[in-house]
This record gives sequence, C-alpha cells and structure tokens, in this order.
Amino acid sequence: MKTKIGVCLIGAGRAGMIHARNFIANVPFAKIVAVSDPVEESRKAAMETLGVSAGYADYREALKDPAVDAVIIATPTKYHRDACVAAAEAGKDVLCEKPMAMTVEECDEMIRACRRHNVKLQIAFMRRFDASFRAAKERVDAGEIGDVVLVKSNTRGPNKPQPWMYDIGKSNGPLAEVCSHDIDTLRWFTGSEYKRIYAVGGNYRCPDARADFPDFYDNVMMSCEFENGMQGQIDGAQYVKYGYDARVEILGTDGLITLGSTYADSVVVFKPDKKSEATHVTGWQSLFSAAYLEEDRHFIDCILNDKTPAVTGWDGMMAVKVVIEGNRSIREHRIIDLL
Amino acid sequence: MKTKIGVCLIGAGRAGMIHARNFIANVPFAKIVAVSDPVEESRKAAMETLGVSAGYADYREALKDPAVDAVIIATPTKYHRDACVAAAEAGKDVLCEKPMAMTVEECDEMIRACRRHNVKLQIAFMRRFDASFRAAKERVDAGEIGDVVLVKSNTRGPNKPQPWMYDIGKSNGPLAEVCSHDIDTLRWFTGSEYKRIYAVGGNYRCPDARADFPDFYDNVMMSCEFENGMQGQIDGAQYVKYGYDARVEILGTDGLITLGSTYADSVVVFKPDKKSEATHVTGWQSLFSAAYLEEDRHFIDCILNDKTPAVTGWDGMMAVKVVIEGNRSIREHRIIDLL
Amino acid sequence: MKTKIGVCLIGAGRAGMIHARNFIANVPFAKIVAVSDPVEESRKAAMETLGVSAGYADYREALKDPAVDAVIIATPTKYHRDACVAAAEAGKDVLCEKPMAMTVEECDEMIRACRRHNVKLQIAFMRRFDASFRAAKERVDAGEIGDVVLVKSNTRGPNKPQPWMYDIGKSNGPLAEVCSHDIDTLRWFTGSEYKRIYAVGGNYRCPDARADFPDFYDNVMMSCEFENGMQGQIDGAQYVKYGYDARVEILGTDGLITLGSTYADSVVVFKPDKKSEATHVTGWQSLFSAAYLEEDRHFIDCILNDKTPAVTGWDGMMAVKVVIEGNRSIREHRIIDLL
Amino acid sequence: MKTKIGVCLIGAGRAGMIHARNFIANVPFAKIVAVSDPVEESRKAAMETLGVSAGYADYREALKDPAVDAVIIATPTKYHRDACVAAAEAGKDVLCEKPMAMTVEECDEMIRACRRHNVKLQIAFMRRFDASFRAAKERVDAGEIGDVVLVKSNTRGPNKPQPWMYDIGKSNGPLAEVCSHDIDTLRWFTGSEYKRIYAVGGNYRCPDARADFPDFYDNVMMSCEFENGMQGQIDGAQYVKYGYDARVEILGTDGLITLGSTYADSVVVFKPDKKSEATHVTGWQSLFSAAYLEEDRHFIDCILNDKTPAVTGWDGMMAVKVVIEGNRSIREHRIIDLL
Repeated sequence: MKTKIGVCLIGAGRAGMIHARNFIANVPFAKIVAVSDPVEESRKAAMETLGVSAGYADYREALKDPAVDAVIIATPTKYHRDACVAAAEAGKDVLCEKPMAMTVEECDEMIRACRRHNVKLQIAFMRRFDASFRAAKERVDAGEIGDVVLVKSNTRGPNKPQPWMYDIGKSNGPLAEVCSHDIDTLRWFTGSEYKRIYAVGGNYRCPDARADFPDFYDNVMMSCEFENGMQGQIDGAQYVKYGYDARVEILGTDGLITLGSTYADSVVVFKPDKKSEATHVTGWQSLFSAAYLEEDRHFIDCILNDKTPAVTGWDGMMAVKVVIEGNRSIREHRIIDLL
Repeated sequence: MKTKIGVCLIGAGRAGMIHARNFIANVPFAKIVAVSDPVEESRKAAMETLGVSAGYADYREALKDPAVDAVIIATPTKYHRDACVAAAEAGKDVLCEKPMAMTVEECDEMIRACRRHNVKLQIAFMRRFDASFRAAKERVDAGEIGDVVLVKSNTRGPNKPQPWMYDIGKSNGPLAEVCSHDIDTLRWFTGSEYKRIYAVGGNYRCPDARADFPDFYDNVMMSCEFENGMQGQIDGAQYVKYGYDARVEILGTDGLITLGSTYADSVVVFKPDKKSEATHVTGWQSLFSAAYLEEDRHFIDCILNDKTPAVTGWDGMMAVKVVIEGNRSIREHRIIDLL
Repeated sequence: MKTKIGVCLIGAGRAGMIHARNFIANVPFAKIVAVSDPVEESRKAAMETLGVSAGYADYREALKDPAVDAVIIATPTKYHRDACVAAAEAGKDVLCEKPMAMTVEECDEMIRACRRHNVKLQIAFMRRFDASFRAAKERVDAGEIGDVVLVKSNTRGPNKPQPWMYDIGKSNGPLAEVCSHDIDTLRWFTGSEYKRIYAVGGNYRCPDARADFPDFYDNVMMSCEFENGMQGQIDGAQYVKYGYDARVEILGTDGLITLGSTYADSVVVFKPDKKSEATHVTGWQSLFSAAYLEEDRHFIDCILNDKTPAVTGWDGMMAVKVVIEGNRSIREHRIIDLL
Repeated sequence: MKTKIGVCLIGAGRAGMIHARNFIANVPFAKIVAVSDPVEESRKAAMETLGVSAGYADYREALKDPAVDAVIIATPTKYHRDACVAAAEAGKDVLCEKPMAMTVEECDEMIRACRRHNVKLQIAFMRRFDASFRAAKERVDAGEIGDVVLVKSNTRGPNKPQPWMYDIGKSNGPLAEVCSHDIDTLRWFTGSEYKRIYAVGGNYRCPDARADFPDFYDNVMMSCEFENGMQGQIDGAQYVKYGYDARVEILGTDGLITLGSTYADSVVVFKPDKKSEATHVTGWQSLFSAAYLEEDRHFIDCILNDKTPAVTGWDGMMAVKVVIEGNRSIREHRIIDLL
C-alpha cells in the first residue's frame, strides 16, 4: 500500500493553492506531486512555491502520471466537467471546487463518471468543515433548538466582480460565485431539498456593467421553501467594500443559533471622537483557512478508508440546480417550483 | 393658553399603560387626565395606578370631557377606526397604536377625519424614536454607507400567540401583530414605497391551532422590492421562547450598518462547563421603554408647536396595506404587485 | 399619614438634578418640594426646571420648611457633614451623594447624628442599584462562580478634571471623585473589609497641574487585600477622552462574571476602510440613569416602610477611609494596613 | 549553503510538539531532524508523530548530530540553562521556551554563551507574534492612543496545577508558569523596564497543597511601575475551570486598546431559559497556534538572514527577574524596587 496519496492540483488559482499548500505538509498521508495549469507563468510559480517538479500545461497529461492518485479541480467552473470526467476515467479520486459545474447535466455526468470508475468525488463546500459551522450543526442535530424553522445565510464579498462575471450566461452570476455556500448551508441545516424559490437581483455597485450586461446583478436575495416545510432566506453581495461577511442564523422551535464573526482580530481601539474601531476580515482565505485544511484531510481520509465524502456530487448538483433556477427566477420575476 | 395637554388613555392594556405612565410625569407640558376602558376591572386598575379620577366605560363619554385635549388609542386594532374618527370629530389630537387599523379603507377614513377636523394623527411606530434606530437613520442619511441597497429586519417574540390571533381574518396575523414595525422600518430606511412583495408563512410552534385555523402562521418571511429599486427582507416569529429579538441590517453601496441588541444586561457568566452565559431580553416593553417616552414627547411637541408628526397616518396606512397584501401572498402562494 | 414624602434638593448640580427629576414623578409616594443652593442662578434654574416654588439660599432655612421630609445632599463634598448633621437635627431623612465626606471623622459624625435623631441615612452608591450590578451580585450570592477570589473594577471618565480637583488636600483626588464607586464595588462583591492596600498614582494628561500641584494624579491603580483573604484591583482615570468606562470582573473559584458595557447604542457601522465603528458612552449620567431611579425609589421605600437603606453610612465611611489611606499610599509610596 | 535548517526538538512535551509540528512543514527552509527526550516513551511517540528517525535520550548526543543546525529547548525550566549553554557550545542556534530559566544568573550564562559562540537566542514569548498583539503594538507605536499610561494583562488557565508546581522554590510558581507572558507583555507595550513591583498571592483552589506547601499560590495580582513612569497591572490564575483567558488593555493619554477573545468559535445558542450560551476557549494551544507558527518562522528567518530575534535573551532574563522578585514580594509582603 502507498504510504502517501499523491495529489495533483489542476488550476493554480487562489483556492487551488490553498488546497495545495495544505497537501504539502499538513494533511497526513498525502503530498502534492504535480501541478497542471495551461498558463505557463501560473504553473511555474505554483511549482516553485509548492516545491514540485512535475508540471503540466494539459491536465490530461497529468492524469497519466503514475505518481498522481487524486486531483484537486480548481479551474474556472466551465472546465470542471471535462476535468472531472477525465480524472475519473483515469481512476483518480476527485476533490472539485464549487460551483461544481455550469449545469445540472454536467454535474450528473460527473457523478456518473466517478461512480462508474469507482473514484471518490468530493465537492469543496469548505464551510461544512469550519469549526463554528460544525459546532452549530452538532447542536442542531442534538435538538438543542428544537426543530429547525428558518435558516438565514448571507455572503458578501469586498471585491469588485471580475469582468468575466458580468455575463450571467457564462458565469451563472453571484448566485454561483458567492451564494453557492449559502445554498449548501441551507440544505445542510434543514436536512431537506429545495421545493420553491424566489430570487430578486439588482446591480447597485457596478455601473460599468449596466450598458452591456443588463442582466448582471451584484446583490441578490432569495426566499426559499423546503420539502419538509422549513423556510430559508439568503442574501448575497459583491463589492461591498467593508470586508468579507458570512453569517448564519438557524431559528428553531425552541431556540436560535447564530454564527459567523466579521472581525479580523480581537483588537478594539477607543478614540477621542468617542468611537471604537475594530478591523474587519477582508477575505474568505483567512476566515476559512482552517476549514480548508479539515476539508483536505477529510478527502484523504475518505480515500484511505474508503468512506463516502461528507459533501457529495449530489450536494454539488443540488446547489447548481438552485443557482440556475434562482437566475431564472431573477430574470423572469417569478416563483420557481423545484420539485 | 393651557399649560398642560390633557391626555385620555383609550384602552388600558400593556402598550396603553406604557404611554400613560409616561404622560403622568415624564412628558413636559402633558398630563394624563382620563382613562377609558369598557372592562371595569382594567379601567379601575389603570385609574388607581395613574392617579386619575376620571374613568369612562365608553370612550365617547371621555371625548366630551373638556379636560381631554388628546387621546392615546390603544384598544384592540378593530376599534381603532371608530375611536380615531370619534376623537377627530371631538377635536382631540390622536396618538394611535400600531397596527393603525384592520384595512386600508379604515386607515383612509381615519386620515380624512383627522385632516377634516384639523387634529394631529400620529401612529405609534416607536422604533423610529429608539436611540439606535435614530442614530442609524442619521448615519444613513449622512451618506456614511453610500446608497441603501438592502434592508433586513426581524422581529421575534417569546410568547405564545393569544387564541384570538389564530383567526388571520380577524387579527391580520403575525404580519400585523409582530411585523408592522419591520414593515415600517424598511419604508423608513429605504425612503421608498413597497413595489412588490412575496411572503411565506407556516405554523411551526402552535399545533393546537392547526385543526381549526389552517391559515394561521407563527413564522413568516417576506421578500420586498421598493419603487426606488432597493431590496428588503423581513422575518417574523411568535413564540420563539428564547426572548424578544428585533434586529436590523442596512446594507449600502459603501458599507453596512447593524443594530439591535438581544441582551437584557451586560452580565456574562463563565462556568466550569467552558460555556459563558448571557441573559436575553424578554420583551419589547423593556427594550423600547425609552423609545416610547421619546414618541410621547414628540406627540405633545407636535401639538404644542403645530408640527406634523414624524410618523403619519400615511405611514400607518402603508404598513396596513403591506400586511394585508402580505397575507394574500402567503394565502395564494404568489408574488403581489403593490403599485 | 402623609401620602407623599416631600424631598428637598440641597445642591443643584448635575447629580442632584438627576435625583430631583426622578422625585418629580417617577418615584411613587415622593415629590420634590424645595431646592436649596447658595448660587442664585443655579437655584432659580433648578426651581424652574423642577416646577418648585420653594427655593432657599441657605439649606438651614429649607430644613425649617414643614413640607420637607427628606433631603438629597448633593453639594460639594466638603459641605456634606454640616448639611447632614443639620438635616438629622431637623429630623429629615438623608440621601447623601458620594463621597460621603472629606474624612472618616466627618462620616462618623454624620452616622451618629442620624442615629441619634433616628433618621435614615443612605449613601448614593447608585451602581448597587444598576440592573447589571444587581444581577451579578445575585449570581455571586447564589454561588454560581464558587467563592470570590478577585474583584477588578475600573472607572475612567472622559472629561478634564476641574481645577478645584487639582489640590488633593481639598478634593481627595480621583480616588474620591472617580474611584469611590470601585472601592464600594469591591467591598460589596467580596462581602468583606479592606485589610491592606497599595496605590500608585501619576499625572499623565494634565500638564497644566504639574507645577502647582505636584501631588495631583489623573491615573491611579490600587492593589487591595481583604479581611477574608480575597483580592482586589482598581484602576481609575480622568480625562481619558474616549468616553466613560466602568467595568467589573469577579473571578471565583468556579467561574468568572464580567459586567459593564462601554457602548452608547447598538449601532455598528462597517466602512470601506475595513473598519467597523461603534459609539462610546460619554457619561455616567446616561449609563446609570436607571440606577439613579432605583436608588431614589429605594430611599423612599426605606422611609415609608422603616427599612435600613441598602447602602448605609458605614458603607460610605469605609469608602472614605480607603480613599484617604489610598492617597497616603500614593504619597508615601508604601503599603497601608487598614486594620 | 544548506537549503533547510535542521532543527532538533529537546523536550517532547506539549509546547515542544507544537513547535516541532510547525517545523515539519509550515516553516519554509526548515525541517525537524531529531528529537531528544530522556523518557523513552515520549521520545518514541514524538519520533513517530514527526516522522523523524533520529532520537536521543541525551541532548548532548543530539548536539553532535551534524544534521542539527538549531534546537528548540522545551524541557522543564530547570534544564534550560544547561541545554542552552551546551547548544551554544556546539554552535547551534537556540529557540528557548519560557520561562527562560530558574534564575537571573542562569539567564545571564545563557546569554553570554550564545553571544560567545555567536548563535541566535530567541525566547518563546509567542504572544508577540499573535496577530492581535501585533496589531495592537503597531497601533500603539503609531501613536493612535497617545502615550501609554497603564497596561493591564491577565492570564488564567483552566487546569489544576501539576503537583511539581506546588513547591515555589522549584517551580517559581504561577508568576513563572502563567504570568511570564503578562510580564513580557507589559515590558513590550510600555517599552520600558520594571522599576517597582508589589505582588499578592493566595491559594484559593488547591486545598490539597495547603498543608505541605503553604507558600503556594494559585492566584496572583501584581502592581507594576516602570522606569518611564508608566503603570501596569497583572493578574494570573490557575485552575479557573471556565477556560483559558488571556486579555490585555492598553490605556493611553488619548485612547484605549483592548485585545483578547475568550471564545472558542462564533456560535451563540439562545435557549428557552432566556439565556444565550457561547463556548469558551480551553487552552493556549488553540488560541495561539498561529502565533507559534509565526514565532517559528521568525526564528528561521533570523538564522537565515542573520537578524537579531525579536525576543532576545535580555527579554527572557528581565521576565525571570520580575518573576523572582514578584515571588519575594508575595513572600515578604513588601514592595520591591528593581532598579
């Protein structure tokens, strides 16, 4: 038996490099063995940073590398399907970044390919591995707040959307890029599937997109009903400037759980203007770094011990479905039944 | 000129008594001079508490009392219209509790009557007088968070609904009883009128109501769009048990404002089980006691200095309209256009 | 029997007016009937504000007024003794502001006079009536944190000291003006008497006082040991600019209680500089307004029902003793044994 | 030039293993190459965990290993001096856990040995590398709160002291084991040396130690004056049960900085008893894990780039001096002048 699972990073962007750095050293029984990225500069930089000598412009070549046992797919979303299917066909286990794919059909193909070739498929909803999210889930499952009634989740990011996100047809918009996590969080805490949604979007902060991309929205709110009768509310935003903001509330029949801190550290400065000042967290990278690590460890643990990942292709597919139907709801100004 | 405005309390329930106690002593240039309540026991108790000798079973008699310059209407909502119109016809200024009335038509009658008889009409959305709400409003108006994008407001109460609330046709339900304030808060912070709403309700905590009142809901969420394009999210709940919970978030193009504390005091107890414990506020009475006082002072100030109240009959009417259309949205599972 | 206790305010400064306003209306069975202040302008203004027609330049005249049943002594500290003794001799119950007096001997005289003439003597340590302080005390007394080990208390005020405070010989300094409350808080939570103290003071913010008042300190810390073996730490400061700051920690054998909030309201503003901003409370007047009211009600309750006040002359005297010995400790750079 | 600094862990206890795990992978240009511990079981377990094949019962043997470039000294304090001097003589750079040694004389020997043999000596006051402590220091240094007036620091640990700590003569007591960090924090924020201290200790939670170790204290408070006139207050405690609690306040002439969070995660649970519940952090290991990592990186950076460590032997020695004189102050009930 191999003592270390060899992992190949496909797509050397920000999220990919967080995973890769974890695999260098902090994930027992794993090591990073190859990097694939079509952009030479990114690939070279990643190889240097990670201390890896095997680099591939085309991930199909990487999949032939016998040192590679598993892959992290962290490419732009539109390439996820092809990379995943190819990895499955090569017998490599897959950890795939969110959103899982561009369409439900793509997700379905990915799930089938992984099942057919008997490889693991884990979707990277890392919040499920965050200490606060997990503690909240345990307490909900233990019945501490009775039955869940309503789950609220918001994600707001500080940065201006990349121009490629303006075309909702190509990016699936902020529902995909920002709210995939919220969508998954509601499914997780309700333990149920989406039954009916109603989403409203608007472009408030990106005037440069208005002329060419009238469908683009940088702020979205979504009202959700679940099969088991529970309620959900999501709000998502891009370019909020004040920082990165991800908070959740779970209201039950017998109590409430809140989670999510927006502060970068514990320092509070009180000034002569009678104001006190705290510093806001600026990105998910720092906020969820421990969650990424736990997620990566879980992936290796599932491979080594032949377990089903805690976040499956089904979870990824259902989130994609809600993204697509949510965009339809925004576009057509109507309620969408999902069942 | 009279040195003190004589105020008559019509309806000696909880909210009414809060106002009345304020008028005894803490509102300059005002005093409580009479109490009207058809229930003898309540009326007598209120007269005793307030140190008032004039008590009337029928408010029509009270309105003939020359010592009465103004009235507080704090009866059950269904009597608001008649009491208000009668007071206006008697030339008395009116401070009317929320919800303003059962229907938009009733509100309209009240507004017309007060206008015709040239008396003040102030609706008791006391949150607008709360120090935190006011500070937030000032900062929003000063442009500190840019343009408003989304306003979120929740109100949750700890107590089991009274049986009379179960019949939505008669009570207008939690949207009226609990969320009137949230509905007003969104109008106030957006500075705009409701354009489109979608509400979802469910009964999660009151199984005893299910058989006879299938329309009853104790939890409601509402998605709101405003004429000026801003977004809003409301959630309301009854019988949440953990305490009284009223919080607001205002997300702007350049920042965020949060407000609302859920704690009864500043005490935190750290225990050997590694948990710390804080005490929750249990009711709006303590949370908003200072706001009631400011509201009452404002009412007298408007009378004495002939100002238009900060919360008008129009504000009350628009909230009633949203309550009624929100109930329709819940009942018919559809989006309602309000324009 | 009289239906209302007639109260005379002696000293129409800030603290005095807070009490007086409470007695106008919010304290059952009490009313303010007279004001005494040697400064005509202050006296007239207070009479106008309070709606009182009886004003006296000399409190000795006020004490002859048969409408006066009780007095609030809120003069400068150096006049407390004379006013209290005179009030006692006139048979008037006394609520005396802190610090109780300039010396332990004065306190002793006051206690004896009140005892001799069988009048109540309550010292205005209003924090004991604050909701958070009381909740903490109840939980300590209920054994929730085991036995008390260490009590920490700080008081810091935003304003520049008045020039008359610079002469420690005359003012007893910040230990008296600022830390009297902390000194009392430690006695209250430990349930014991001071055994040994060590205080250190310095002048950090008032350079204008340095030449003429080398003994003046605007920052003080004090280490305290109690008869029952418990520990205490105090720190006090003037002119901290950032706001008013009064917090307490009670460390027990089995837990910890913290109390005290420094925020003026619940508003938090998140800004594009990634900072969030909250507003600081600026004075004890707003922070402890409810505590003043409870204190005033308690005073009247003690008179009407012949109870011993919760804060006695002994409590006031022990605080004065610690102030004086604390000043000695600062001056002589040595530990002081108090037993 | 070597591409990786080879590090040997001397003393495979809790703190040592935290460092060692960091060096495995997270510290660039470093790797762990050997473990030394006289207890075979501990040594073997550490070798297994760290994946290291070189294990030594006697660190003197480890120091002969050419793969070892630097050492982490994490033995019991009483062995620090010998290990450090031996490492220096062998030309190995030293990262030494706190407290630096048992006496000032030992510290002095260590400093001289490292200077003589031209090796680095860094003392592991890891709080200086914590994100919140660093942010506070930067803001203090930037003058945001004016000049520092008073620094308060507390450290309280949840666990019962080990029996070997009961003998203050051998352990230097909680001032050494718990408050070394607080002592360093005050020096760091005041930027000055201790001039005068007064400490009080008591045994409140360890009745089993009273008979045999009457000098043992599990709670200590210390009043501190600095050469530059600034003030300091420390309190330290063992076996507080409720969790691990390290907080700091820096009061300046123009403001205040507070830092330190006591919560394990961001989850708050609101329950039907009207209480909300948060979970306390239970140990320094989790609270300061990122600080340990920064500290270890800094050590390697100093070696590679020939820099003076941010925390020197002098810093370590001054803390030991205050510990010893603080214990004297407790024992002799007197103020100690340190200059």
